[in-house]
Amino acid sequence: MHPGQQRNQLLLGTFVHSKSRRELDIFHNGAVAVDANGKIAAVERDCPSVEAAKTQALSKLGWDADDVDIYTTKESQFFFPGFIDTHIHAPQYPNAGIFGKTTLLDWLEKHTFPMEASLKDLAKARKVYTAVVRRTLSHGTTTAAYYATIDVAATNLLTDLCFAIGQRAFVGRVCMDRPGINPDYYRDESTEAAIQATEQTIEHVRAIDPEFDLVAPILTPRFAPSCTPEGMRALAKLQKQGGYLAQTHISENTGEVQLVRELFPESQSYTQVYDDHGLLTPRMVLAHAVHLTEEEGSLIALRKSKISHCPCSNSSLTSGTARVRWMWQKGIEVGLGTDVSGGYSPSILEAARQATLVSRHVAVRAGDDIEKERCKLSVEEVLYLATRGGAICLGLEDKIGGFEVGKDWDAQLVGLGRVADSGLREGEEYTANGHGAGAGVDAAGMVPALNGCDEGNVDIFGWESWDEVMAKWLYSGDDRNTKKVWVKGRLVHARR
Amino acid sequence: MHPGQQRNQLLLGTFVHSKSRRELDIFHNGAVAVDANGKIAAVERDCPSVEAAKTQALSKLGWDADDVDIYTTKESQFFFPGFIDTHIHAPQYPNAGIFGKTTLLDWLEKHTFPMEASLKDLAKARKVYTAVVRRTLSHGTTTAAYYATIDVAATNLLTDLCFAIGQRAFVGRVCMDRPGINPDYYRDESTEAAIQATEQTIEHVRAIDPEFDLVAPILTPRFAPSCTPEGMRALAKLQKQGGYLAQTHISENTGEVQLVRELFPESQSYTQVYDDHGLLTPRMVLAHAVHLTEEEGSLIALRKSKISHCPCSNSSLTSGTARVRWMWQKGIEVGLGTDVSGGYSPSILEAARQATLVSRHVAVRAGDDIEKERCKLSVEEVLYLATRGGAICLGLEDKIGGFEVGKDWDAQLVGLGRVADSGLREGEEYTANGHGAGAGVDAAGMVPALNGCDEGNVDIFGWESWDEVMAKWLYSGDDRNTKKVWVKGRLVHARR
Repeated sequence: MHPGQQRNQLLLGTFVHSKSRRELDIFHNGAVAVDANGKIAAVERDCPSVEAAKTQALSKLGWDADDVDIYTTKESQFFFPGFIDTHIHAPQYPNAGIFGKTTLLDWLEKHTFPMEASLKDLAKARKVYTAVVRRTLSHGTTTAAYYATIDVAATNLLTDLCFAIGQRAFVGRVCMDRPGINPDYYRDESTEAAIQATEQTIEHVRAIDPEFDLVAPILTPRFAPSCTPEGMRALAKLQKQGGYLAQTHISENTGEVQLVRELFPESQSYTQVYDDHGLLTPRMVLAHAVHLTEEEGSLIALRKSKISHCPCSNSSLTSGTARVRWMWQKGIEVGLGTDVSGGYSPSILEAARQATLVSRHVAVRAGDDIEKERCKLSVEEVLYLATRGGAICLGLEDKIGGFEVGKDWDAQLVGLGRVADSGLREGEEYTANGHGAGAGVDAAGMVPALNGCDEGNVDIFGWESWDEVMAKWLYSGDDRNTKKVWVKGRLVHARR
Repeated sequence: MHPGQQRNQLLLGTFVHSKSRRELDIFHNGAVAVDANGKIAAVERDCPSVEAAKTQALSKLGWDADDVDIYTTKESQFFFPGFIDTHIHAPQYPNAGIFGKTTLLDWLEKHTFPMEASLKDLAKARKVYTAVVRRTLSHGTTTAAYYATIDVAATNLLTDLCFAIGQRAFVGRVCMDRPGINPDYYRDESTEAAIQATEQTIEHVRAIDPEFDLVAPILTPRFAPSCTPEGMRALAKLQKQGGYLAQTHISENTGEVQLVRELFPESQSYTQVYDDHGLLTPRMVLAHAVHLTEEEGSLIALRKSKISHCPCSNSSLTSGTARVRWMWQKGIEVGLGTDVSGGYSPSILEAARQATLVSRHVAVRAGDDIEKERCKLSVEEVLYLATRGGAICLGLEDKIGGFEVGKDWDAQLVGLGRVADSGLREGEEYTANGHGAGAGVDAAGMVPALNGCDEGNVDIFGWESWDEVMAKWLYSGDDRNTKKVWVKGRLVHARR
């Protein structure tokens, strides 16, 4: 990073972030001042005009307007916190959409392990990891908790790429030290080798980002069946020593739950396996948590471990329907994960959308009407999961997830398309001759076409309330609506 | 249409369409010749080269190469049949994504009826209807079965727009002649008035397209609760006289099923209501069909009525999970519907994607593992639903849905993006200074950005099989991948 070389910035206009799980805070004529270190230095709210907000912010900070880069939102634009992906497998990205009718265990064998193993080829790893970091940034993901592979060099390459491209990331070398369960072509040679390799990847992060300011290591026992008891205990010890974050999978699929029961007969539940080996801590992110019992939910709440909800993956792999409302009622903090490539989409906006749908599938199976109603997640709630919820999961709630003084400017500028009175949208016009396509031109030689980049699928007609605008963005938005993305104040993605 | 003014066309390269429900037919080095009337005149398959296919097709047809417009697919491009949307409410399009936590009956009251009623304002109707026709075309929908509103003038305007813009469409004036259930501000004044108004819209279609070649009327009793017994019987009579297609809703929501039971105590089931009033015919498209009993399924199969499966809507409005495999096992033909705005997306590709997810939610609730496996729909099956399945539903299986001689050229050119070895994708580059954005430029003043139109979210790495390419398109594709769209040989949408 080049903190000294960034300039002060002043963002003006409309801002939206979560006030609470149930409520979005939408303020217009606001100003957010970001200093050259990427930190929010001032937030002005609901000024009578954008100009007033600007004057107010500048005078308060004593900044000279000439020394500040200024951006003002246009109509149908707003600033929103960057998305936080609490569970994504970077090496699986090329398999997005390729899962057929598999479920977890055969999917691992057939699609996942071969792809992950192949990324020890560093040229291939560079291609895949560059694509996934750039692609997730373009969807507004400013922070990602990545699973890499077992390979040290490739994992370090992912760390380097996140750092260079400018995405906030946790990068985890995957620990798979149990013979028999993991394929022989893709596993750690021994528990000792696994821990040593993990330590090498931690030291690599420390070498390029000593304070773990942008990129940090994350301990990553793949899931209980992949690990020996000794391996898990050693990682727990490492976590105690270094204070690192950790991540793993839990209770994704009924076959997996059964396998865990067979492999760990001495533990009373899947959750208990992690607790018995010292991994069920407040610094643990548990992905999926679809089939937890009441007792397991209570234990996770007691230990203050976090859950990454991965709705797209759980639907795609027929894993089941995780119950976010139930988790919240237990007192567990939840974030969203794309779980690429169990989930086919690298977009957290898509994950948020699917979280609403999965919550409705939970509701379909719920008891009475009141309980059905309770299960459903609202627009506001899934956007909370996508931002502040994810920040809490990753222990970053004081740093990212909303627009408050002292937080880092991890944000996206969202812009939505408007429908003209003619019914055409911006960027759409009738052009002659199908741009030289030749074929099928109508009588007058005119063909309706999109000229250059369009504004995406959200159509704002002009009569919507801001709550409705947010709903339209959630349900029809995509990366075309993410116009700019900043991490720690640095512009890391833009779109014309 | 101006058939005499179209030129002969020759499409060369890769073609994909459904061979059966279970199998896609993917052929390379093919040629499809389309005559000036938009009909497929020849199909050459698997020639040794594109050049050979071209020579072969031209010599067979005796066409001079100079008199033919030729398009050849590029790498990662293919021709695919146009999508068929068997259930979409044109006037509800501005509400896409706006449904909160409602379910069917309160959603109708709160969001739907007010919007539909407001479209008697023809300026508003023109804006909305132009947007929905253009938008669905841009998603590759070459044929749509539209519900309009009760208003004759606005319904006729929708017909005019489909005809002018060039989308194949069924346009239905909605019949709502039952007082008490329909709101007073939005219902037909009487059964007679309803039938008369419907006849006016039919005559309007006949006046502009006498053979119903591109645009056709469709009888549209909204759903049983909206209609009087007399109204339904009169529509059945009209159908017998004119041979028109008909469409309605069935068994979408449990509250609705209960309401039908109360309103029609003399009928044994929801399905029986339509049968008792003469509407359960082979020319009836029933939308949703989520909560059908075994008996109802058997009756629908016996009557050869069709079902429009609307997975996005059924998940969004918490309606439930319709069982496509069960319908097929009953012998019922099924197509896909976006059901805008019960469904938030106007894309049939999205509907196909969600059909796979809903089938997995059906599987989650199914009995044993064999049954679970059976419930799941494959990539091939949902693409069949989106094309040939829809064609059968609308009685057009001899005209559209695949690439055979004698069918109309209703098609889309699909193009997918490729990832370069650098990991960047086509259209992505590092540009100076964030195109004048000013804010947050890094040390070197360089910002990663997309220059102009990008290729969408499908990332082809180059090692995928064609089956995998199709899966990637299904799960990550969007309207950016639909490069050109033809209806009856006429180019009606293009994208640079």
